[in-house]
Amino acid sequence: MTTKVKLLGFWCSPFAFRVVWALKLKGVEFEYIEEDIFNKSTELLELNPVHKKVPVLVHDKRVIVESFVILEYIDETWPKDPLLPQDPYEKAMARFWAKFGDEKLLESAYKAMWSKGEEKQKAMKEAVESLEKIEEVLRGKNFIGGNSIGYLDLAIGWIGYWIPVWEEAGGSMRILDSQKFPAIAEWSAKFLKHPVVKENLPPRDRTLAYCHKRAEEIYANFCASEN
Amino acid sequence: MTTKVKLLGFWCSPFAFRVVWALKLKGVEFEYIEEDIFNKSTELLELNPVHKKVPVLVHDKRVIVESFVILEYIDETWPKDPLLPQDPYEKAMARFWAKFGDEKLLESAYKAMWSKGEEKQKAMKEAVESLEKIEEVLRGKNFIGGNSIGYLDLAIGWIGYWIPVWEEAGGSMRILDSQKFPAIAEWSAKFLKHPVVKENLPPRDRTLAYCHKRAEEIYANFCASEN
Repeated sequence: MTTKVKLLGFWCSPFAFRVVWALKLKGVEFEYIEEDIFNKSTELLELNPVHKKVPVLVHDKRVIVESFVILEYIDETWPKDPLLPQDPYEKAMARFWAKFGDEKLLESAYKAMWSKGEEKQKAMKEAVESLEKIEEVLRGKNFIGGNSIGYLDLAIGWIGYWIPVWEEAGGSMRILDSQKFPAIAEWSAKFLKHPVVKENLPPRDRTLAYCHKRAEEIYANFCASEN
Repeated sequence: MTTKVKLLGFWCSPFAFRVVWALKLKGVEFEYIEEDIFNKSTELLELNPVHKKVPVLVHDKRVIVESFVILEYIDETWPKDPLLPQDPYEKAMARFWAKFGDEKLLESAYKAMWSKGEEKQKAMKEAVESLEKIEEVLRGKNFIGGNSIGYLDLAIGWIGYWIPVWEEAGGSMRILDSQKFPAIAEWSAKFLKHPVVKENLPPRDRTLAYCHKRAEEIYANFCASEN
């Protein structure tokens, strides 16, 4: 009997895409199930009762959630062509910067998109400062994983595709200036050109329209909660 | 030449203690350096320029920060008596619940301590809901790592010692009711009795006095930022 792998995702979630890329790089066949995150399915609520979020990986009867936990699971379950470095220190660095990318950069860049005025300026500043740190990590590197895409490439691979969309959706603000961040620009161009990545990205126009709408909704909710 | 291991910590930080416990369990000799987190040393700022926080592990010239990243580094560098389970799925579960403990339970339980009124009720409710989930994980287990302390025991080991202190510092509020959470109570008693843990805990009275003071300071800052 063949092993069954199933992934619950959302069509423009960077968290879901990093799992898609990992599975494709490993050559793992899987069934992709699109989840409506605004009207969650019984299946999602049953599989991820704690966070009720995508991505969810189902491998036989094993359910794994949280994208970074999933990436490690994938790397350990299908160990050929490892994603994580073998050296414990390099591994620690990969885990550290992955977490940094989500908690510092992604949070602030997304907030810069939907917020306005002082809040937006503050979020933009934080995003730029986080990018400065990532620029240092990427300087002089081909892929962060060496000559092939590794864990950290997958973890922060969203930067070059999603940030420009968020910039546009957020009123042509500028965070990811390629003059200021040449290492990120070069690495990102290479990453997005990799066949596995290139063929697995959400359509830009639709993503932009979605982000425009989300930015307005989140800002409206934010204003309502402030009053 | 022997390998040099150094740990920068703070005397009552649960994040630092989980690293202390891991090093002691592994039998790794290390120099402990107490850090004044309210007047940070040049050493801390140089070693952890990104987050400027303890714990920081220095192993020869390698600097590792973020307590969970450090735990994995320790487990990989000194692999005897593994902390993490060997099975990828069990490993994923340990990582998932460790993160949940910090992000959901610790955040809300700490907020329940320092906040007041509606905010406090909300935080207490969130903490109790998180404990309900952890109760399920612990049910029927000796240590989560099996018959010896493992990664997840270390990661959530703070619960039984710090939460009662926070409850007292927060005006005798009640979150961790042993009637309601018998599995947590039993596991926690065993965990805190383990020699490595028992001998490496901050003095309760001093921790309580510190938390009292911190609760007042944080609440004052919170009120100031609201106005």
